[in-house]
Amino acid sequence: MSSAQALLAKVEELVGADLQEVEQIFHTELKSWHPYVADVAAHSARFRGKRLRPTLLLLTAAAAGKLTHDHKVLGAVIEMIHTATLVHDDVLDESDIRRHVATVNARWNNETSILFGDYLFTHAFHLASELESTFACRLIGRATNLVCEGELAQIHERGNLDLTEETYFKIIEGKTAELCAVACQLGAHFACSDPNIVESLTEYGRCLGIAFQIADDLLDLQGSEEQTGKSLGTDLQKQKLTLPIIHLLQQASPEDAAQIRELLANPQPDTSAKLEEFFEQYDVLNYVLGRASEYTALARKQLECLPDSPARRILEEFTEFVTQRAF
Amino acid sequence: MSSAQALLAKVEELVGADLQEVEQIFHTELKSWHPYVADVAAHSARFRGKRLRPTLLLLTAAAAGKLTHDHKVLGAVIEMIHTATLVHDDVLDESDIRRHVATVNARWNNETSILFGDYLFTHAFHLASELESTFACRLIGRATNLVCEGELAQIHERGNLDLTEETYFKIIEGKTAELCAVACQLGAHFACSDPNIVESLTEYGRCLGIAFQIADDLLDLQGSEEQTGKSLGTDLQKQKLTLPIIHLLQQASPEDAAQIRELLANPQPDTSAKLEEFFEQYDVLNYVLGRASEYTALARKQLECLPDSPARRILEEFTEFVTQRAF
Repeated sequence: MSSAQALLAKVEELVGADLQEVEQIFHTELKSWHPYVADVAAHSARFRGKRLRPTLLLLTAAAAGKLTHDHKVLGAVIEMIHTATLVHDDVLDESDIRRHVATVNARWNNETSILFGDYLFTHAFHLASELESTFACRLIGRATNLVCEGELAQIHERGNLDLTEETYFKIIEGKTAELCAVACQLGAHFACSDPNIVESLTEYGRCLGIAFQIADDLLDLQGSEEQTGKSLGTDLQKQKLTLPIIHLLQQASPEDAAQIRELLANPQPDTSAKLEEFFEQYDVLNYVLGRASEYTALARKQLECLPDSPARRILEEFTEFVTQRAF
Repeated sequence: MSSAQALLAKVEELVGADLQEVEQIFHTELKSWHPYVADVAAHSARFRGKRLRPTLLLLTAAAAGKLTHDHKVLGAVIEMIHTATLVHDDVLDESDIRRHVATVNARWNNETSILFGDYLFTHAFHLASELESTFACRLIGRATNLVCEGELAQIHERGNLDLTEETYFKIIEGKTAELCAVACQLGAHFACSDPNIVESLTEYGRCLGIAFQIADDLLDLQGSEEQTGKSLGTDLQKQKLTLPIIHLLQQASPEDAAQIRELLANPQPDTSAKLEEFFEQYDVLNYVLGRASEYTALARKQLECLPDSPARRILEEFTEFVTQRAF
């Protein structure tokens, strides 16, 4: 058993039954009178991943205090919003596979993807309003606003070969880190009343999310579709600049930079392979992993305010595995 | 001044200032750090219509009791959700113009439309959670679930030349009438405590919405783009069967029906013109307007529980104008 599998086994042991309940709530919420909608919903369940966000929500709850039914409802809400963004992303990226399964756009069509994504968004908010107060609705509303804004900014910056690291980080903070942050914030808030712990765990989620996205962007450049089970190379094709490329362009000699820009401006199936030697020459991989490590170290630091517990230990281990994409 | 303009003048006089506040809340909620997002938001304000849904919300509030600040917030929420569905509809229908202005997909691209629609949905729910209780969030969540489900069902039935009237009505109840119903429900609920009045006004909104959609579908077949300021004929192109076509196929002789099916199966720019003589032959227009009138009569009946007031009188006039598409 690999260490990643061992970590997943610990998660399963600690919150496996709660995650099952999250799944149950998720599916009950999406029931539909129309067989077609039911079909699409059932299909989408097949390409969802290892439920990182609800897992974070449940573990932060357990680490900060007491895990309640509200946490499970909120876990389903966050997973639903995440799934909505995946379904819409697959249209934007024209992706055909995700987790070894056909995407909604590939299996049906773009129209169905757009509407089914909307259906997931509205059901997520409907489910969140089951809670007694509007607190969760407000936090989730705010976080998803930032997710959409980050995604819109990313679309706008497509083809901008002068994208700065600063804007890159602002974009991924919105499109990825915000949902991880709010998952941890909700986990902590509904489990304990100490605002310092809630704040630290929110920050933990944000830093973990940033490291996760850096690793994801690296994977899109250098991973294999067979191994990851999803369409890759879409960032280059869509001219979305990510950290490795931004750093490479910063470091490269003027001659190399000109050549790299030429490659980026006319993306071909072998563009990634052609960039490989530049990555090695300028030691890009080390730099990128170093930046991700800064964030995982920051994430780890946030956990210091918590008493020792199995949940806290798993959250700590997450910071080691997130850049290896055990999730 | 036409009678439609006279009606709009009455609306303006009674709730014009409140509608201005709704606009203000709408724009404040959509403020963004990113200039691109701000641009798209500003542009989308230009193709929004006569604000039927917030107007219904404010008028039902005034007719049922007291119009409060919450009503204005909710008016902005409902208008935001409606705008989100328009922005996504324009991608689905590949429409280029709306209210004489370029659609988001035409001005920018489909990706921006998808994400900006999402941005509107999430902001709507964020704004709704400003209210004290989760009641509005829950109602709006439920209504938007049904809107999406109706739209998904419609996509699924595309190309189905055997679509029944029953399914047609189920689809438009979801995709259009539900949002009008919830606008009136919220207007009434936050203005008075009589459940009978709330129920009647909800039903008023639903019936008005159905009549409105029937008229809209007729317009898509027979209207002029110049007059309506939006892309038309998309239902035929996308093989979405609407009431005129469904009725025509039911009434036509087997020979005519075969010919009509042939026309529908291979939509061309002149399909609408070719169907015209069949519409006349089978008196389709009268039937369709008759069905719409049934719903406007039902809507009018719901108002009987209310005391006389300027707001109630306008709501009553709406039932006469909705099929003439003053809105």
